[in-house]
Amino acid sequence: MASQQFEPPSGTRENVFAQIREVFGRYGFEPLQTPAFERLETLTGKYGDEGDKLIFKILRRGEHESTGEADLALRYDMTVPLARVVAGYGSQLPTPYKRYAMGPVWRADRPGRGRFREFAQCDVDVVGAASPLADAEVVCALTDALDAVGVRDYRVLVNSRQALSGLLEVYGVPADLGGGVLITLDKLDKLSPDKVAAELVDARSLVRLASPKVGEDRIAFTLSLVRGLDYYTGVIFEVVAEGMPGSIASGGRYDKLIAALGGPDVPACGGSLGVERIIGLLSDDQGDAHRIDVAVTVIAEDTASEVMGFAAQLRDAGLRTEVYLAASRKLAKQLKWAADRMARFALIYGASDKEAGVITVRDMDTGEQAQVPTGELAAHLTGRCAPSR
Amino acid sequence: MASQQFEPPSGTRENVFAQIREVFGRYGFEPLQTPAFERLETLTGKYGDEGDKLIFKILRRGEHESTGEADLALRYDMTVPLARVVAGYGSQLPTPYKRYAMGPVWRADRPGRGRFREFAQCDVDVVGAASPLADAEVVCALTDALDAVGVRDYRVLVNSRQALSGLLEVYGVPADLGGGVLITLDKLDKLSPDKVAAELVDARSLVRLASPKVGEDRIAFTLSLVRGLDYYTGVIFEVVAEGMPGSIASGGRYDKLIAALGGPDVPACGGSLGVERIIGLLSDDQGDAHRIDVAVTVIAEDTASEVMGFAAQLRDAGLRTEVYLAASRKLAKQLKWAADRMARFALIYGASDKEAGVITVRDMDTGEQAQVPTGELAAHLTGRCAPSR
Repeated sequence: MASQQFEPPSGTRENVFAQIREVFGRYGFEPLQTPAFERLETLTGKYGDEGDKLIFKILRRGEHESTGEADLALRYDMTVPLARVVAGYGSQLPTPYKRYAMGPVWRADRPGRGRFREFAQCDVDVVGAASPLADAEVVCALTDALDAVGVRDYRVLVNSRQALSGLLEVYGVPADLGGGVLITLDKLDKLSPDKVAAELVDARSLVRLASPKVGEDRIAFTLSLVRGLDYYTGVIFEVVAEGMPGSIASGGRYDKLIAALGGPDVPACGGSLGVERIIGLLSDDQGDAHRIDVAVTVIAEDTASEVMGFAAQLRDAGLRTEVYLAASRKLAKQLKWAADRMARFALIYGASDKEAGVITVRDMDTGEQAQVPTGELAAHLTGRCAPSR
Repeated sequence: MASQQFEPPSGTRENVFAQIREVFGRYGFEPLQTPAFERLETLTGKYGDEGDKLIFKILRRGEHESTGEADLALRYDMTVPLARVVAGYGSQLPTPYKRYAMGPVWRADRPGRGRFREFAQCDVDVVGAASPLADAEVVCALTDALDAVGVRDYRVLVNSRQALSGLLEVYGVPADLGGGVLITLDKLDKLSPDKVAAELVDARSLVRLASPKVGEDRIAFTLSLVRGLDYYTGVIFEVVAEGMPGSIASGGRYDKLIAALGGPDVPACGGSLGVERIIGLLSDDQGDAHRIDVAVTVIAEDTASEVMGFAAQLRDAGLRTEVYLAASRKLAKQLKWAADRMARFALIYGASDKEAGVITVRDMDTGEQAQVPTGELAAHLTGRCAPSR
């Protein structure tokens, strides 16, 4: 698991998810989560032979464990699980249905730069709309989210899944001359030139419709683009960025997938942001901001309960407040802890404070101390702590 | 998978996560996520014999798949993975270290009311603090989160893991007389009366320290409380609520777990909220709020690109905006869609609008229409749409 053993403490990842969720909501996509695992047969045969080998399979349980067989599998993406839901429950969903989902997917890949065995995707999908407007909405929602989290210098490449192989065929070029890049195209049905032309028109429509939002210089029809997943049927796209190998977002149209899973013949398209790669592009300049507002010292065992009460008041007032939890009752050690935590203020509640009905508030930046009546503590501090969230 | 096939579109779940995250942050807990799966041997032997049977195991991959053996397993909770991280990387973490985590865990249980094969937990843990203040902070963070999401009528039950068995022993009661409730206690070492007394003192300290925040009438020492997990070593607690079988939150002290995973002998405690059960207690009164701010109709193919541009402006202004994506170009059908989506306003951009440089804004509540210059659209609508988020 190497690089994934744990990720360092940081709010960056959560901020990224929150910003993406906000953008998806602004487009009217609604959340729909599916479980981490699916029946094995739901996933196999959707991702190509190479993809199938990367599926994590779950051993049968109880008395069946000894068979060594698998019946469930961790999701490889969030598109096939959505198609499975629509195939089974589509009649309960609005048409068109716009959903988003955010969560981990798993691939038994060899870990490397930008390549993980567990990684998070943020997906948007439109089910039940064949119009290029739907593809354009998907692309705009994804690029809008990239803008929101602060990714710069990305480009959107657009093609049709079948354009390249279709064109080769139309022009009489044997498919095997395409080499490695065509590895996933060999199972496609033969296409008429008309079909190829229609798909190229859709790809160009997507570029035209998405341009006002994405910016004309950042989106381009790119005939050489190929996507590896078997389920795409029409327009495909990738978002690439300077400094990150592979794509940071991708997607396309998968008009036959819902029917392949036993559902009705419903058109669908969608796309996905790769969260780890996006975070890899962001500079980590959280800088010198205070990590907490108030550090509460505990210098006498018999006032611990009252001190917990002060902390409760401050948290109720929205302040980020920590109580000293280690064993020492020495003030100097606890003030060092407050400094390490980058607290804005420290509270000290000694015997003389208690007698006078006050609490000592220490400004950790200036070292100045003030005696504040205990009843006015929250009001005193609320105004002085800048909103940190 | 039955009830988990998918959850209905709703923002409730996300709101609950956001509210809990906000509270945990206010206490100074920091996010640390671990992967969905761990090495199988990390998980086995930590949850008791019954727990071990509920672990989902992942088949080895590639050439090893045919052995039918498992080497990885889906996490059963988030406590053992945290202990594994601390055992391996503890020197990189602050002391005490306060972390939170939110995410799914998996148990191969028979699904039922409040019982799922995949469910979400929200955990807080304090590593490196032996003081009952740490246990109290954990309990207060969890109950504060319950208050924030709107759970009422809960009670916190507190005991020591070893108090009951220890007392039985001190009083010479054979452990097997305890019956089923003692099933998990049989592996405990013998206790001296002093040790039992010390643990009872810790449990009572937790009740005293947490009372100012939780409320004295909502937290009580409860000698009959037993927790099933093998790794608890001291104070244990559960939060129970009217109308939900089992507990909605639980936790305790696990001072030996990090050492058992090869790490240093570091005290630790933590607790966990059960998200599905909490959501089950909330009334779903999202009511008649507008689901989106603006529904954008597309009544002519040749203006689609401009219309996408209007939508982009409104989203940039923070308005929740949807574009009509289905095939029909009939206005009546699209206005019905706008009504179904509970839009506050609909936009109509016809040939005469375009000629006059305006766009028609329809108030979906009153049916009134206004012609707004296209350059003033965002300003016109921003003030009229109440902040919905």
